[in-house]
Order: sequence, then C-alpha cells, then structure tokens
Amino acid sequence: MTEAPMTARAASTATAGDILSSHLTAQAGAFLRALPLAVGEVGARPGTAAVPAAGTADLLRAVRRIGGLLHTFGSVFEQTWAQESRTELRWLLNLLALEPGYVRRSARLLGALDSLSGSDPDGTGMLAGHAGAPKARALLDRQLTLARTRAHSSVLQELRSARLHALADRMTLLVGEAPLLESANARAGAVLLPQAAAAFTALTASAAQLPLQRAATPYGGNGLRRLGAVPQARGAVDADTALAADDEPWARMRILVKRARYALEVCGRPSVELDELDDVLGRHQEAADAAVTAATAARTPRITPATAYVLGVVHADQRLEVEAARYAFGRRWPELPPGLDGWLEVPPAEGWGPSPAPRTA
Amino acid sequence: MTEAPMTARAASTATAGDILSSHLTAQAGAFLRALPLAVGEVGARPGTAAVPAAGTADLLRAVRRIGGLLHTFGSVFEQTWAQESRTELRWLLNLLALEPGYVRRSARLLGALDSLSGSDPDGTGMLAGHAGAPKARALLDRQLTLARTRAHSSVLQELRSARLHALADRMTLLVGEAPLLESANARAGAVLLPQAAAAFTALTASAAQLPLQRAATPYGGNGLRRLGAVPQARGAVDADTALAADDEPWARMRILVKRARYALEVCGRPSVELDELDDVLGRHQEAADAAVTAATAARTPRITPATAYVLGVVHADQRLEVEAARYAFGRRWPELPPGLDGWLEVPPAEGWGPSPAPRTA
Repeated sequence: MTEAPMTARAASTATAGDILSSHLTAQAGAFLRALPLAVGEVGARPGTAAVPAAGTADLLRAVRRIGGLLHTFGSVFEQTWAQESRTELRWLLNLLALEPGYVRRSARLLGALDSLSGSDPDGTGMLAGHAGAPKARALLDRQLTLARTRAHSSVLQELRSARLHALADRMTLLVGEAPLLESANARAGAVLLPQAAAAFTALTASAAQLPLQRAATPYGGNGLRRLGAVPQARGAVDADTALAADDEPWARMRILVKRARYALEVCGRPSVELDELDDVLGRHQEAADAAVTAATAARTPRITPATAYVLGVVHADQRLEVEAARYAFGRRWPELPPGLDGWLEVPPAEGWGPSPAPRTA
Repeated sequence: MTEAPMTARAASTATAGDILSSHLTAQAGAFLRALPLAVGEVGARPGTAAVPAAGTADLLRAVRRIGGLLHTFGSVFEQTWAQESRTELRWLLNLLALEPGYVRRSARLLGALDSLSGSDPDGTGMLAGHAGAPKARALLDRQLTLARTRAHSSVLQELRSARLHALADRMTLLVGEAPLLESANARAGAVLLPQAAAAFTALTASAAQLPLQRAATPYGGNGLRRLGAVPQARGAVDADTALAADDEPWARMRILVKRARYALEVCGRPSVELDELDDVLGRHQEAADAAVTAATAARTPRITPATAYVLGVVHADQRLEVEAARYAFGRRWPELPPGLDGWLEVPPAEGWGPSPAPRTA
C-alpha cells in the first residue's frame, strides 16, 4: 500500500470527504508522476515484456483505483464530473492494457505449446515431436506479434491526443480538490461503510449466480463439454457464442472483486483474500482469451492438418486452465467473509480506523 | 458372486486343495456352459453393443478368474500345466475382449465428440457448430467400424480352431480334478493366506511406484503436459512413446488389482473397494486407448484442417479423462486397507471363513 496512512486520531474524526480526498490526492499524484514515464516507455520501442514497464504499471494501478473509488463512493461526488472521469479513465485503462495483454497472451500460448510439445524426459508433453507443433508456434507467434504491433501503434497515437491531455488536466485539478457534494461532510463511517458494504453485497450476489457447485468438482468437463446456457439463445448455438456466454459472469465477477478490493483499501483494510481471488480471476480471463486466440488461429486458411490438430490441443488446454481457475475460485470463495469481516457489527464510528482488526477465524 | 459358498464348518477344516478345487470346478463349469453361447453370439452377426452379450461376458468372467487363481495360487499346482493353462486363457481373453473393446471405444469417442460439439443449451460444448465435428465423427466411426469388423473376422476364425477345442478339453478335465501338488493338502489358511497376502504386497508395491502425489492435485496437467519419464530414453522422445510409458504403470496396476480381487474372492472376502478401483483403472485404460485412436485418426492423409483440429480437441479431452481417472484413483487408494484388512492379524485357521469380518474403519 502506497497510500499515505492516516493516524488513528485523524481517522476517527475524519469526514467521508477527508478520507476520499486524501486517497484521490495520493492516486492522482501517482497518476501524474507515472504518466510521463509511461509515455516515454511506450515511445521508446515496442515492449516485449509480459509485465508492463514500471511507469505503465504505476499508471494502470492509479487509474484502476481512482476509477474504482469513483464507482463505489460515487454518490458523494458531483455526478456529471464523476461519470465523465470514469469514462475517460476506462478509455485509458483499455488503451494501456492492450499491448502488455498481447505480450502476456503470447507468453501464455507459446509457453503452453512449448510445455505440450516439450521432450524433456522430466516433462514430456502429449505433443512431443509432433510435426505440427513448430508450425502452430510460428503461426501463433506471427499473429500475436502483429496484434501487438497494431496495439502499439494505436497507443502511440493516442498518447499524443488531446483526450489524454484533458484527462491529465482533470487529474491535476483532482489533487487536493475533489468535487464533493454536501453529503461528504458526514462522518466517514456513516457514509463510506454502507457504500463499501454495497460493493460486497454486489460481489456476493454475483457469486451466487456463478455455477460454483459445478466448478467445485474437479474434471467436471465444464471447460470443454458443459458450457453454461446461452441466454435467449434461438436456433443454432455456435461455440464462440456459447464460450463467451459461459465466461461472461466470471469476467463480471472479476470487476466486482476489484471494486471490493479498492473499497477496502479506501477503508484502510486491504484483504489478502480478495487479492488472491483477483489473481485467480485474472488467470481465468487470460486463459479464456488465449483459448479464443488458439481457436481463431485454427481458422486461418491454408494451414496444414497437423497445425490445426496442435491448435485443437492448445485450445482444449487453455479451456482446461479456465476450468482449473474456476475450481480454484470455488475452493477459495467460501473462505472469504461474506461482507466486511464482521466489521460492520461494531458501530461504524468506533469501528473506523486504519489498523485492521485481528481476524478471529 | 456366483461361486458356490462353502459352509463355515466345511471351510474351517478345508485344505487349500479343497478350496481351490471347489473354485476351479465352479469356474470351469461356468466356462463350459458359456462357451457354446459365446460361439453362437459371435457367429450370429457382428455385435454392436458396448457390453459383450451374456454368453461372452460369462465366458470372459470365468477366464479371468481361473487365470487369476492360477497366477496367485500357482505354487500348489503342477507347474507346467498351470503355466500352459494361463497362456491359453490369456490368448482367449485377448481374442474375446477385442471386438467389444472396439465397440466400447467407438461409443466413448463418438459420445465425447457429440458432447463436445453438442449445441443443447444446457450442455453446449466447445466445438458446437464446428464444421470439423461431423467430419471427424464420420472418420472415427469409419476407422473403428473397420477395426471392429477385422476383429470380428479373426474371432470367428479362431472360435473354430483346434486351439480353442484343446482349451475346452483342458477345462473339462479341470472340473473336479485340478492337478494339485502335495502342498495343497495343508490347511487352507496356512497355504492360501500367505499367497493372497503376496498379491496384496505386489499391489501396494506397485502403487508406491505410481505418481500418486502428482495425481492428487486436480488439473495438474499430467494428462497433457507432464507425462512421466520414459525409461532409458535416448535422443528424441516422441509423444506416442511418452504416452505409452506414462500409462504403463497404471495398466500394470490394473492387472494387480484384478489379481487381488480374485484372490479375495477365493478367500471368501470380496472387496467393494477393489471392485471400484478396478472400475476406475478400467476407465483409465479405455480413455488412454481412445486418445491413441484420436491421435492416429488425425494422421490420416488428406483430412481437412477442421477435422484435424476437432481430433486434437478430442485427444486432449480423452487425456483429460485419463487424468481424471488417476485423480479418482488417488482419492480412493488411501481408503483401501494396505493388506487383507487386518485379517492376517488373527490366526489364519480361525480367521478363515466365507463370511466377511465386520469392517472396523
């Protein structure tokens, strides 16, 4: 946590506005420090690291937290301003995440292929020595390099845009001066806790919609054979639609976990459990995206049957990773306290404070 | 259990020879009753049922039990006779199992393909609507039908052979008159229990060689990515060799489980746990064989890339079933008593009897 910690005394008498302003000032400052670094990194040359360089990573981190804060505690901000800010932050997030996303996907898919076709005696894969493996690897590498290069060009272009300058100006104004409504003057506990609790309620409600019972059985074949029902499906169902519909609630869950994480950070209670769930759902997303890439590559015209066969194995392998992530989620979810860890049971004003209460379970 | 039960009194004073003769008489009788039925069934027309017809099933059942008995308690029989009998029984077993095996493999692979390409809203598969699915289905169906027809012809031919007549004569002589050695005149408990215990020792030793730790983790990727080391591998390792080497200890385990099952039946203590392990290892074997068939079909010349892609998914799906069976085995194995269920702890002569002792755990 890089947020400036508040002293217990300050926190106990702080208003909601004090807490939110303090967080927004810290994050907007991080944004403004990271922005020139990130622009320089992107401009330097196409990145090939799976992890974004330091400046870009810091920028993404600040963008996610400001956006999450403005969503969860949105009701105490000037509405039009908060809505516009979130739209612009989401635009920058999608823009910046694109290129490192392709680099990670490339590492994942080529790593999977190397593992599946590995002929190391200690870890031979089921495609060892298969004629299609080097061809499929070259095909995936070519297609993902092309996608990454395109993403890089569009990032380069947008980083010089008026839109980014306007967003930077918006962040500059935010340092020390968030457009808060009157309601932000109430005590922090009375305003922020119910809103953080609402983020948890949304999380729990979303989890209740997930097929956690199915995901609790290892090797249930959900990743390959038993995708969820496609809503309002009419006529023929194709696999792409079915896979997208199957993954959608998990992608939604990931967003809600991130929001709950950031809400807890604002409340001074970072949760290791939520961090881990976020990681698991991140793996879910990346495996699902990688599976789509493998399936798409297999539709490339004029590839050999051996190449297509290998891509079929890779596709199945990534859907298996999707299933593994769901299983891992299902194993961890029940450990998560169904709310704010018993914290809402004490009167909010007294319960408020930056130091986490000891876990009793 | 169709074996004629012995009364407790008879059992408690029986010699090893009495017990073994009684079992062999019952099983050889079952063999002789089932043989003409099985010949008639095979001759009627090529079977298409995944389960062998009644006569063939009864014949296979008797063949397996006589062979297992002659292996586990072999030391009290005339050696050359026991060895020859086992060879001939194994020949008949392999012959009879071939055609139903192809029918089962066909049902498994076409069922997997139908499930993977199913577009039922409740169970959409990742290949729903894929152009390669009907083509791959037709290819697998054609190749397996051909294999089954070939197997059928060779069974038909061998069922008229002098070799089968000689085996039937051997079984006729066995009814009531097994060629026992002098040592079979000792008390049953003193002779049979140590030999049954040896079957369990072999079972436990074989299980200790299995990668049960790896198989205990769901989605460990052992079925696809981390096959076992190939013994004495030199130079390039190809996938077929690696897969065969990976499956071999499990196939060996299956034989030992069957032997232990049949040994316990002779001792009047059939074990539900061993029956279940046998089932699980049977699924392992069938999935491994089906995976080989899918991989072989994908090497058919002039197939389309879409067909090959679908076969790649089916291959991975079956290796996933292999992994699921290993996981299921690893979950059940520790529940199995590491020996004769505490039964060897009581003096053999008193512990001997057809009614199972109550389980204490």
